[in-house]
Amino acid sequence: MALDSLKSEGFKQVGTRPDRPDGFDKVTGRAKFGADATAPGMLHAAIVRSPHAHARITRIDTSKAEALTGVKGVVTRADFATGLKGENWNILENVMAGDTALYDGHAVAAVAATSPLIARDAAKLIEVEYEILPHVTDVDEAMAEGAPVIREGAADKSVPPGLHPNVVRYHESGHGDVDKGFAEADLVIEDHFRTEATHQGYIEPHACLATLGGDGKGELWCCTQGHWNVQKICSALLGLETSQLRVTASEIGGGFGGKTTVFIEPVALALSRKTNKPVKLVMSRSEVFRATGPTSSTSMDVKIGMKKDGTITAAQGVFRLQGGAFPGAPCEFTAMCAFAPYALKNVHQVGYDVIANRPKQAAYRAPGSPMAAFAVESVIDELCGQLGLDPIETRLKNASKRGTKASFGPTFDQIGLVETLEAAKAHPHYSAPLKPGQGRGISCGFWFNHGGETAVSLALSEDGTAQLAVGTPDIGGSRASMALMAAEELGIPYENIRVTIADTATLGYNEVSHGSRVTYASGLATIEAARDAVKKLCARAAAKWGIPEDAVKWENGCAVPSGPNAGDFDPLPIDQITKRMGATGGPIVGHFEATPEGAGVSFATHIVDAEVDPETGKTSVVRYTVVQDAGKAIHPTYVEGQFQGGAAQGIGWALNEEYIYGEDGRLQNAVFLDYRIPVASDLPMIDTVIVEVPNPGHPYGVRGVGETSICPPLAAIANAVSAAAGVRLHELPMSPPRILTALEKQRDG
Amino acid sequence: MALDSLKSEGFKQVGTRPDRPDGFDKVTGRAKFGADATAPGMLHAAIVRSPHAHARITRIDTSKAEALTGVKGVVTRADFATGLKGENWNILENVMAGDTALYDGHAVAAVAATSPLIARDAAKLIEVEYEILPHVTDVDEAMAEGAPVIREGAADKSVPPGLHPNVVRYHESGHGDVDKGFAEADLVIEDHFRTEATHQGYIEPHACLATLGGDGKGELWCCTQGHWNVQKICSALLGLETSQLRVTASEIGGGFGGKTTVFIEPVALALSRKTNKPVKLVMSRSEVFRATGPTSSTSMDVKIGMKKDGTITAAQGVFRLQGGAFPGAPCEFTAMCAFAPYALKNVHQVGYDVIANRPKQAAYRAPGSPMAAFAVESVIDELCGQLGLDPIETRLKNASKRGTKASFGPTFDQIGLVETLEAAKAHPHYSAPLKPGQGRGISCGFWFNHGGETAVSLALSEDGTAQLAVGTPDIGGSRASMALMAAEELGIPYENIRVTIADTATLGYNEVSHGSRVTYASGLATIEAARDAVKKLCARAAAKWGIPEDAVKWENGCAVPSGPNAGDFDPLPIDQITKRMGATGGPIVGHFEATPEGAGVSFATHIVDAEVDPETGKTSVVRYTVVQDAGKAIHPTYVEGQFQGGAAQGIGWALNEEYIYGEDGRLQNAVFLDYRIPVASDLPMIDTVIVEVPNPGHPYGVRGVGETSICPPLAAIANAVSAAAGVRLHELPMSPPRILTALEKQRDG
Repeated sequence: MALDSLKSEGFKQVGTRPDRPDGFDKVTGRAKFGADATAPGMLHAAIVRSPHAHARITRIDTSKAEALTGVKGVVTRADFATGLKGENWNILENVMAGDTALYDGHAVAAVAATSPLIARDAAKLIEVEYEILPHVTDVDEAMAEGAPVIREGAADKSVPPGLHPNVVRYHESGHGDVDKGFAEADLVIEDHFRTEATHQGYIEPHACLATLGGDGKGELWCCTQGHWNVQKICSALLGLETSQLRVTASEIGGGFGGKTTVFIEPVALALSRKTNKPVKLVMSRSEVFRATGPTSSTSMDVKIGMKKDGTITAAQGVFRLQGGAFPGAPCEFTAMCAFAPYALKNVHQVGYDVIANRPKQAAYRAPGSPMAAFAVESVIDELCGQLGLDPIETRLKNASKRGTKASFGPTFDQIGLVETLEAAKAHPHYSAPLKPGQGRGISCGFWFNHGGETAVSLALSEDGTAQLAVGTPDIGGSRASMALMAAEELGIPYENIRVTIADTATLGYNEVSHGSRVTYASGLATIEAARDAVKKLCARAAAKWGIPEDAVKWENGCAVPSGPNAGDFDPLPIDQITKRMGATGGPIVGHFEATPEGAGVSFATHIVDAEVDPETGKTSVVRYTVVQDAGKAIHPTYVEGQFQGGAAQGIGWALNEEYIYGEDGRLQNAVFLDYRIPVASDLPMIDTVIVEVPNPGHPYGVRGVGETSICPPLAAIANAVSAAAGVRLHELPMSPPRILTALEKQRDG
Repeated sequence: MALDSLKSEGFKQVGTRPDRPDGFDKVTGRAKFGADATAPGMLHAAIVRSPHAHARITRIDTSKAEALTGVKGVVTRADFATGLKGENWNILENVMAGDTALYDGHAVAAVAATSPLIARDAAKLIEVEYEILPHVTDVDEAMAEGAPVIREGAADKSVPPGLHPNVVRYHESGHGDVDKGFAEADLVIEDHFRTEATHQGYIEPHACLATLGGDGKGELWCCTQGHWNVQKICSALLGLETSQLRVTASEIGGGFGGKTTVFIEPVALALSRKTNKPVKLVMSRSEVFRATGPTSSTSMDVKIGMKKDGTITAAQGVFRLQGGAFPGAPCEFTAMCAFAPYALKNVHQVGYDVIANRPKQAAYRAPGSPMAAFAVESVIDELCGQLGLDPIETRLKNASKRGTKASFGPTFDQIGLVETLEAAKAHPHYSAPLKPGQGRGISCGFWFNHGGETAVSLALSEDGTAQLAVGTPDIGGSRASMALMAAEELGIPYENIRVTIADTATLGYNEVSHGSRVTYASGLATIEAARDAVKKLCARAAAKWGIPEDAVKWENGCAVPSGPNAGDFDPLPIDQITKRMGATGGPIVGHFEATPEGAGVSFATHIVDAEVDPETGKTSVVRYTVVQDAGKAIHPTYVEGQFQGGAAQGIGWALNEEYIYGEDGRLQNAVFLDYRIPVASDLPMIDTVIVEVPNPGHPYGVRGVGETSICPPLAAIANAVSAAAGVRLHELPMSPPRILTALEKQRDG
């Protein structure tokens, strides 16, 4: 590999694997999660939810509930702001129904009482009368003629005329001439694919503690991936000034994209304002399934043409995403990611955002991309199979690289897809013999990654240790990575740095922890803030020595005279500067506020061995290897953890997880016993290979790693199942009943 | 008055009286004070305290306590850091006794249990054996030959040879030739004065919630005037890295200087580390009296010579301060403040810091100054009386002004003593007729005021509102003042700003809220941070308009093109800039970190009418007027509140409050029933006059106002009592028994 090395050598701490700073708190139970906050006089809340998939609310009678001893207040939609527009209106409508319940589990009222039990009892005493309306939950049915209209006028201007009103957004992109391309192909395969909605399955349900006074000032403690976003949305929904609502992010027990928006926080705030008491609201698991944001369900058509030598001549995809009762299914991401791994002369992709009577979807790790990869990489696998080509060599032949015009428009800078494919090819897994009944599949995956608004502050203590305040909740080990980067720049031990997730009142605006942006953007911000602090440290040394500031350099945690002054003074260690900082100009703090825009895109290649039990239809993943480009792995253990986590969640999505709706439009499996995420015994050890092709947009070369790892698994496992069982499944999950049906269909001919 | 006006005109918001931002929280009970924090699994602690004034600890047996069900851990001195030196050693020794208990109430062990009751029961089961040592609690006795030595080697190098080892620090200053000055006088009066220790009497006892893990990382919530100081001290006492202990200041129910150090916080942290649970520790009122820091008791000799025309020819004072069992009584402040109001050719002052078997003193509003004023202003009053001079005219004749060489060394810049005296003279109170039996007294008072290390951060929200993070706990309305100053600079409404007291992890180092420094230093920092934010706002407008940054000015909350570009574009309001800040460069935050050194000294003149009941000896304050120079009153209501609060506390100190020690060296009045602070019915309406002589060291002219107001009351009331009853008291408090004794002595002749 001939890579542009940015700073691949010379790191002293970056790339090591120190203990995680949050480890002690988590194993001893000291870490405070969403439900761990309390306040004097606190009330507990419960939410009344619609038992209907689609129903007009004709009457809400709260009098019996309000008469119950211990009940302090009830809120309905009337207790929120009016006149909202756009996404704020959608969020409010989702958080608390207006005149229509749009899905099973949609909130219609909430109550606060002196105990959780009283609150739940009171919720049952709130009488809601419904006029049931026809409903639709399937994406294809929702687009079909005659489907019930979820909401008139929900479509934006992107939607071409003639489509069903449930199609609310439309995306189209590509380049070249696909018809010409298909004509040049030796083999064209077109297939239809479907995936069901899956849930992020974070172990910690949403929980918050809200206080909001009649003075319009509030405090909110909540489990979130982005508390500034919570602040902004809740302020809008409650009619507050943004700055007057202070939001603190709790420790987080998983998010994966599902905690980037709000569900219960505005309700707790409304109840607090009504009762003038702190209000705690904790979701049950069933509420999490029914009323937070799962991923979209999809219906997809993918067509690819290939020459006998493996060259792809054209690719085309249509991606229909059902995102619940509100616009927002990431159809453009699905479309744009679909063919991104490949350098294509002719490519065309279309996306549809379709509403239906389901909860509003939320982001889930690389939102939209895994489904696209499932369809596209299945078709490529099928092409390779029919043409007798090696799947890795074929992908290498077509792989995007620096200078490739991406399927979604721009031209790629330095990227690492080829390197992941080469590493996969060289990995012992790829050439290991398979046992009878086993099959091997591979797949590539792609995610954009993201920068976003970021503010960081780094304050030094008098003893020369450092306090780093970042604004991106730590969903994947970022406190460890930030401490490593700050330690690297300051030249002090990792252990000397405390990283804190600052609340909204004490730091500049920070975008949500999403888009695999944290190690990239907050990391860049941390490095720059540390460099700012180092500049100030050097200035103090210069003043002490009476030499120009630019005659001082920073080495190993010391100010050192340099240039013409080299050797004139002994190195001055950081703690010798900080202990006198009050008398030499005041506190030393490094700052960074900006919107970094150099996030590097990310690619992965996964190898899976699977075994299918022909009697039960159960698929076992027997070996799994993740190869992914991290740009630069700051804390390799965490990077590997992200790789493994993405694969594990992908295995669940591929094999078992799905939202099951009954004829009545109600969710039938809203508990973990019925919605089956993989447990340890379902998974092999997941091997990882970190490829490092530096991102030119980051001082250390960092790319995001959290999302790409969930893109290849669906297809890689489908390809392995196909190889193992001789049947190709076009619908997820590949659960035992579906596998059995496919096997039977094959036997039947 | 011909004053240098800095910016006395043109304020739009500064000087108005908007609602206090913390008002709603406080009246509705939502404000979270020290004892209002909880954490899952939290334990409660109790402290075992010495019942002896001075005793060697020969054995501590914790076994019975540890065997009690619910007890989770016990700590003694062995659980704290060793090898500490200087003030850290003193604080640790005070927080938890080593081998000797040095005063009644001195902590010797502490226990954490699952409930407060179990903790208190367990404390009683801890067996401590003492070998009782001779003790001394009186300042003069402690200095006398043969007094028990509290601690060998406690004295520093400032102490001249030949003094008792209990004299631990010494101060001497002055100029001219006092002997020559006294020789020039027509009348010389020398008197001896004594004052007793008083307590700040804050309504909220000390309380904290501590968590500290075996990983050396901790969190501390506590009621304090300065959480960075708490962080620094506790880290030292527990052997932690400073940055690894995050300290958050609670809402504070009064401090007045007494919450500038630590008493229970290190104990709670040690218990948490031992039990690995959060530990809550709340003092009882009795513990507050016995084991926190009251002010010093004093013994003072003051000698002043005056000519018949009122000119002071010389002044001399000896001030002995008893500050408990550790060095730190502010004898230098007493000495330096004593004669500061007067322009003296010949002045000499000496201070002694004396240790005794009492709790370590802490700051109390202008520490050391009120006692000096009591002595000095009593003697001046006596001189005026005997020479038939008007007390205000006499003070005006000798008053310090710009250019005066102060009694403590430097030369005064622009100051406002003359203006307060002129305002007092012109006030209707000064010329109002008195009823029979009433007397009128006046006094001046002085305090230095202070700057100190300060960091502030001001972050804008997308809706154009602002979040100001300051690091100085709000002990006197500073959130209102800061919001006014930020609003003034940003040109947005006061209500659009939220002021938060940031914790130690999220802002640069901030010195304690003391020295009347907050409105001055955090105010200056707020103004500068706002100006920094305005500069960034103007830069965004310049970029949008494509004109140079210096061609944009800020007016009324809008960017406005100026100079050659004036009128080229419509004014761009703040919210139009902030709503696009993410896309135009990122978050907008203003910063300030420095150590402002331009605090302006402060003077006050008080007028008091008192009436003495000759039968009971009870003194009633019937009219009271405070005249004080605020420099510039940012929020006049709060300034008036400070004036009134200082006077109220001074009235208590003058008339009733005192620490009463028995022969056994134990405190006899450690509850509010026996230690009598003034209640509403003890006080008249306290009238206030705000004088504004701008401080050149602050952009708006602010001086501190919190401390000077407690300097004149002791003397002003003593002078009024003298005028009313015809007896001069030289010892405080002028409680009914002392007044009766004085009246009897006078009658007996």
